[in-house]
Amino acid sequence: MSLDPARLQAMANAIRALSMDAVQAANSGHPGMPMGMADVATVLWSQFLKFDPSAPDWADRDRFVLSAGHGSMLIYSLLYLSGYEQPTIGDIRNFRQLGSPCAGHPENFLLPGVECTTGPLGQGLAMGVGMAMAERHLNAVFGDELVDHRTWVIAGDGCLMEGINHEAIGIAGHLKLGRMIVLWDDNNITIDGSTDLSTSEDIRARYEATGWHVTSCDGHDFADIARALGEAVADERPSLVACKTIIGKGAPHKQGTSATHGSPLGADEVAAARFELGWDYPPFEVPADILGDWHSTGQHGKEAHGAWAGRFEASSDKAEFARRMAGELPAGDIMGEHVAKLIAEPQKVATRKASEMALAHINPQLPETIGGSADLTGSNNTKAGGIGPFTADDYSGRYVYWGIREFGMAAAMNGMALHGGVIPYGGTFLVFTDYARGAIRLSALQRVRAIYVMTHDSIGLGEDGPTHQPIEHLASLRAMPNLLVMRPADVIETAECWEIALKQSNRPTVLALSRQNLPQVRLEATGENLSARGAYRLKLAEAPRKVVLVATGSEVEVALACAAQLEAQGVGADVVSMVSTELFDEQGAAYRSDILPSDCLKVSIEAGTTFGWERYTGTDGLNIGIDRFGASAPAEALFEKFGITADAIVPQILNKVNN
Amino acid sequence: MSLDPARLQAMANAIRALSMDAVQAANSGHPGMPMGMADVATVLWSQFLKFDPSAPDWADRDRFVLSAGHGSMLIYSLLYLSGYEQPTIGDIRNFRQLGSPCAGHPENFLLPGVECTTGPLGQGLAMGVGMAMAERHLNAVFGDELVDHRTWVIAGDGCLMEGINHEAIGIAGHLKLGRMIVLWDDNNITIDGSTDLSTSEDIRARYEATGWHVTSCDGHDFADIARALGEAVADERPSLVACKTIIGKGAPHKQGTSATHGSPLGADEVAAARFELGWDYPPFEVPADILGDWHSTGQHGKEAHGAWAGRFEASSDKAEFARRMAGELPAGDIMGEHVAKLIAEPQKVATRKASEMALAHINPQLPETIGGSADLTGSNNTKAGGIGPFTADDYSGRYVYWGIREFGMAAAMNGMALHGGVIPYGGTFLVFTDYARGAIRLSALQRVRAIYVMTHDSIGLGEDGPTHQPIEHLASLRAMPNLLVMRPADVIETAECWEIALKQSNRPTVLALSRQNLPQVRLEATGENLSARGAYRLKLAEAPRKVVLVATGSEVEVALACAAQLEAQGVGADVVSMVSTELFDEQGAAYRSDILPSDCLKVSIEAGTTFGWERYTGTDGLNIGIDRFGASAPAEALFEKFGITADAIVPQILNKVNN
Repeated sequence: MSLDPARLQAMANAIRALSMDAVQAANSGHPGMPMGMADVATVLWSQFLKFDPSAPDWADRDRFVLSAGHGSMLIYSLLYLSGYEQPTIGDIRNFRQLGSPCAGHPENFLLPGVECTTGPLGQGLAMGVGMAMAERHLNAVFGDELVDHRTWVIAGDGCLMEGINHEAIGIAGHLKLGRMIVLWDDNNITIDGSTDLSTSEDIRARYEATGWHVTSCDGHDFADIARALGEAVADERPSLVACKTIIGKGAPHKQGTSATHGSPLGADEVAAARFELGWDYPPFEVPADILGDWHSTGQHGKEAHGAWAGRFEASSDKAEFARRMAGELPAGDIMGEHVAKLIAEPQKVATRKASEMALAHINPQLPETIGGSADLTGSNNTKAGGIGPFTADDYSGRYVYWGIREFGMAAAMNGMALHGGVIPYGGTFLVFTDYARGAIRLSALQRVRAIYVMTHDSIGLGEDGPTHQPIEHLASLRAMPNLLVMRPADVIETAECWEIALKQSNRPTVLALSRQNLPQVRLEATGENLSARGAYRLKLAEAPRKVVLVATGSEVEVALACAAQLEAQGVGADVVSMVSTELFDEQGAAYRSDILPSDCLKVSIEAGTTFGWERYTGTDGLNIGIDRFGASAPAEALFEKFGITADAIVPQILNKVNN
Repeated sequence: MSLDPARLQAMANAIRALSMDAVQAANSGHPGMPMGMADVATVLWSQFLKFDPSAPDWADRDRFVLSAGHGSMLIYSLLYLSGYEQPTIGDIRNFRQLGSPCAGHPENFLLPGVECTTGPLGQGLAMGVGMAMAERHLNAVFGDELVDHRTWVIAGDGCLMEGINHEAIGIAGHLKLGRMIVLWDDNNITIDGSTDLSTSEDIRARYEATGWHVTSCDGHDFADIARALGEAVADERPSLVACKTIIGKGAPHKQGTSATHGSPLGADEVAAARFELGWDYPPFEVPADILGDWHSTGQHGKEAHGAWAGRFEASSDKAEFARRMAGELPAGDIMGEHVAKLIAEPQKVATRKASEMALAHINPQLPETIGGSADLTGSNNTKAGGIGPFTADDYSGRYVYWGIREFGMAAAMNGMALHGGVIPYGGTFLVFTDYARGAIRLSALQRVRAIYVMTHDSIGLGEDGPTHQPIEHLASLRAMPNLLVMRPADVIETAECWEIALKQSNRPTVLALSRQNLPQVRLEATGENLSARGAYRLKLAEAPRKVVLVATGSEVEVALACAAQLEAQGVGADVVSMVSTELFDEQGAAYRSDILPSDCLKVSIEAGTTFGWERYTGTDGLNIGIDRFGASAPAEALFEKFGITADAIVPQILNKVNN
């Protein structure tokens, strides 16, 4: 759509007016960015972005990510003006109020046109990398006729200054993701003031150093913006467009300063901006002709969608493509054969190895999985089932060598999952969830199926010592809402956990897996995925029951050894494998009190902090764990040092039982 | 010290031999890096590094950071060979065994010559930035005669690929930290294989883009190494020296491959390497002449130390410099006057504002504090007490504009604290501890006094919504060993918490502070820092006690309102302010059971996850909290929505009490 500058200016000013008015009404928010980037966004929306407002979930739409999420009024304005069903003008009037989908920061689960939740800086751009990867992969699999779109990102100085930016653009440059374009709101202002308070970087040079195409434009000159975006589209490399803008553009006394960044302009300045912009209309009113121009921006995309629908209907891949984009697993029992074989031939293997064995079954059956590791492939055992590398030369590959970039990997996994059509999993050491935690939280908040394969899950990793030994990590991840944490005890539970993780269409999973070998504790077929109960009774007391031992992962073996010693002394002891506290909490009260009865001593055994275990053992129970940092030594020496052995634990239990 | 290449080669081969032998004996470890960087390290140690093996804590020593911490045998070899008291050859024989100070990764608390704990990649270099900042600051304060040293870092590809590298070099370049020199082990190998699996970056160009001087050398040519290091020393900018090396150099069949990175070479290859290197000596034996050459490397530093000691003795700053380097606070009651004034004139302020008020008293009294914020100065209220900016033009400043670099800030704070002479504090939003978590963990593990000023500590921040509202953060931080988490309820407790934090010479502190105003709940002078008890009884039950309400921070006000309603109905209720669970856990049993008696209902109230609270309330208690993500709305609306109000809580309490 090509319009004369005056009409484009009016369209852009509609964004400015809605943004400043909504922030003013809420008495809270960030007017500076939407006002500064209004001109750029108007050009993007009217001349470049492929979208159909009547079908926000159209698979082949361009993805638009507002990485500078604090400027949320920009995307709310764009969605409203261009004719999406949501948000309504009422929603915008209720910006930042309880129940409005126009939240302080854009939330993917509140508005269909919001591709991802942004606000934590840097992550939107990194999710864009994942979206662009998913797009190229699906393009390689399904061809141009079904998948052929771009990923556009609007990012601010903060997004570029965060460390994750280095990881994200390093991946994108290396993988030559030429269909990704970042529009940098280059306004020289951060919250604290001018960017030169804290940075002297030549950002263009840095992007070029990682294989990006870089151009720039006057962010308030429509023709120049269109020229730069056209250049970016034409270049084969991922592109950074430095859009020179004035933050808060249109607010005559405050524009160009950090005063417009995160506060309402104030009634006087809003009035002055109306005058400056020639915007004579009441708050939240957009004249019909301007709204008409905005509505027409989606026309091209609607036509493209129609053409696409024809190709889709005619495609022999129709059913498979639809299944994958819907996030539905293929029919059939994914793990049944594998588990049956393990029951027949028990194995003692590390659960990281058990995970590799599970993946060897999963990956051939589920073409939608894309695996990877942050440079620990051989340690995380994530490459299995014959999948080949995803590279710039072959996007059909399903294994990503992420490099030493945990945070970038996790954020890109979120982007992949949000794009749809793929199920990402990725590995590092459990202790390095600390590096990726910001993105794991966004997996949980955004309700996406990302699967974290976190190996080396305790002091059991041995000699690498305290920097590598998780202590607080299981507890700190269990504390996070909507994150499923599972720690399987053996090869069977690991297979079950993988099946559970794949079936979670609305939440991410952390699999905590051992470095060291663990004996198979499940030796009989049950016909049920017992791990799905969260906790289950692995061994029933033989003598009259006085104790219930609750353990996870590698400590289930220790609990069984404790139980044997206790039974030998006439003290009956159940052993419960607590694979996942979250899944257990979701069971009914009857099941829970059957597994953890009130009339006996409950003992938790986990080679990590005891923090949080009182929920299951009570304050009169016994919590065996490690409430300090670990040490460097062979694993057996450490389990002994920290008292995670039957010989160290049983006397404490007997002491409790006999008193 | 200038030696001929043959003698330098023998010295370097001593590192190679010790490294491969120790890893072989441990059957675990990383020989590739020490063998690859042995030549560079030999030149650094013999010709550039200023150190005195007999005084590892000499204040004006150069700081040496092995950022690629997995190559720990490099630093153990260097310390042993150059004549430090520790490690002994016996310690090296026991590499990675229980009790040996030669742990899998270098630990600052195990060996005096280890400046910081490394292993989590990227952080060593970032800590080096903090050390270099502390050096320049102390130089500005105390002059060249007392403080005039360099910070040397050895980093690998992993350190450079991590996101934190972008933040760290951005700070260093902006602040023109010319006395920092990074020796990059440029060997083209990561764990997964060749670096070109995952990166195509022009690292030199990236460093130059952030204001660094870059040079390179053949890392196996002594003269060329010395030339490059000399160039780096001469340049006014921070320097990156790309040392082109062969990983595992000396192991004839494995060198240059990732096979040498993280596994023992194996007996055959060790034997082959001995032949290749012409190293005819038994394991762990270094001939006297080679050891003699190594011992002489410290001679120059010893002489420099002697000269420095003379200047120190003659300095009028002697006492103050010694006090600051020892980490001792000045004599006197830091907060007394401030607290007395607040008792006299009660105030209702946000605890972030209360923190600013405390800092206004602290900063003038403690010249060693260096504050800052990750671009949230006005929100974190961290700039107080008249301190000016720390800039490239004025290193005497005490306020750092860190930019949007939470992780880089936290790691640099660790480096500052480890350098000594300064006490760093820095702010961001509590939710963004997720971004800095890797460094907060190293604060705790390294036992340093870093103070995290984390504001916006709950849904009480309001409209910014779930991306900005901490839910699991208090719990996840409390789960971390050796980290003090404090959440004050009012202006007085905030002052007390600051005093406590400053006095923690062996652990870091997180202060969780409110955005919203909170009434002063402590209205009478006590003469004691009650917060130091962790929890204390703020209000005693009037009617017969049936309930103890335990709350933190902004919810203490809610607990008081609950108590008033309960008392009005004849139900006696204590109110306990639980400022810090860790400090409370450290109290004696009698105090703890007095505060949390077993004979009444215990109710926790905290606007975050309930996870972990059963430790204090028992499983028959009541835990009021928020076990889901937050929402975007004004604070009051959110407290109501999530049931954190007296009206919502009291009926639940009565229901428990009456049943």
